[in-house]
Amino acid sequence: MNDAAINQLHYERLKKQIDFVLEVNKLKEIYRQSYINESGRRENDAEHSWHIALMAMLLTEHFEGAKEIDLLKVVKMLLIHDIVEIDAGDTYAYDEEGMKDKQSREMGAAKRIFALLPEDQSVEMWELWGEFEAMITAESRMANSLDRLQPLLLHKLTNGMSWQEHQVHSEQVYERQADTKDDSATIWHLMTDIIESSIASGILKK
Amino acid sequence: MNDAAINQLHYERLKKQIDFVLEVNKLKEIYRQSYINESGRRENDAEHSWHIALMAMLLTEHFEGAKEIDLLKVVKMLLIHDIVEIDAGDTYAYDEEGMKDKQSREMGAAKRIFALLPEDQSVEMWELWGEFEAMITAESRMANSLDRLQPLLLHKLTNGMSWQEHQVHSEQVYERQADTKDDSATIWHLMTDIIESSIASGILKK
Repeated sequence: MNDAAINQLHYERLKKQIDFVLEVNKLKEIYRQSYINESGRRENDAEHSWHIALMAMLLTEHFEGAKEIDLLKVVKMLLIHDIVEIDAGDTYAYDEEGMKDKQSREMGAAKRIFALLPEDQSVEMWELWGEFEAMITAESRMANSLDRLQPLLLHKLTNGMSWQEHQVHSEQVYERQADTKDDSATIWHLMTDIIESSIASGILKK
Repeated sequence: MNDAAINQLHYERLKKQIDFVLEVNKLKEIYRQSYINESGRRENDAEHSWHIALMAMLLTEHFEGAKEIDLLKVVKMLLIHDIVEIDAGDTYAYDEEGMKDKQSREMGAAKRIFALLPEDQSVEMWELWGEFEAMITAESRMANSLDRLQPLLLHKLTNGMSWQEHQVHSEQVYERQADTKDDSATIWHLMTDIIESSIASGILKK
């Protein structure tokens, strides 16, 4: 194989990768239930993914077995975990109806979108997304904790606007955050602090 | 030191980290000159940072010395590189006036914002941001190439809306992308392809 042929192969790979990069650009228009501040502008999945990836950079130390955690893998999972919502939409954490077919909708989305990539990278996406969803490894458990802590911070910041809109009560919030209890005493303490002070100040129903 | 004291120290660190996490939330409201699509909605720094961090995951192979590149460091730089714009604002790449005091405005911002973190993490932020700006290491050169490729992709996607608004011509775009030439033949080829086809289709002035 000569140089020109090798470069052509590289360029074909690059073009597939760019097709994917342009496809995931749509994540900037998938809006979540969280507000970014009291202006009333909802957060989109791209911003949310950036925010939690940055949180991972800073907060690893608080998780059990921190020294063994593969931070790059955590960050990769967080950067890609919501891509399936381009087709499947954002399913609100407390939407029981929507939760029923969430998995099948998201699976179809993954099939279409990951297939845009060269095969080896498509496989990597499936592995990362599968690991995130399964919540077995330390990396995926940390990633899921951050994915749940971040909206809690925003709900507190915006005086519970989204909680009130959806009539959410504190038991639902506790249940949503419960997995973190086993993985980080410090972050679990923060979560309970936020929930209890939100109840006390009347922005979250008991 | 007993357990309770250790936990209190951890919790104090966490609270500083969360102050920083809430401060950088403001990046979601720093708007750039690029449009995310033809709806006319500008891209913000948080979305942009997410997009290029994800691009780094996929495109490392195209850069010189790819096997030695520390991808986690590239991703970290990309996640934090625009934080200073919370105070300094986004300086448009082709704004000669704004470019003059860009450095001093951004330096002041870094001092204020990075200082919110525990000292060791504040130092890490300075190191990452400094490395990104200096553009000497392979990691920072790759990061800068992606930071410039991404808006080029968006300008093409949106039929040059932002180029026309600012009367940008192709020589400026070539100059802006020129550093990539030494670091990735494949991505440089893509950049010239995009610029030339944009000139040919009339969305970019020669």
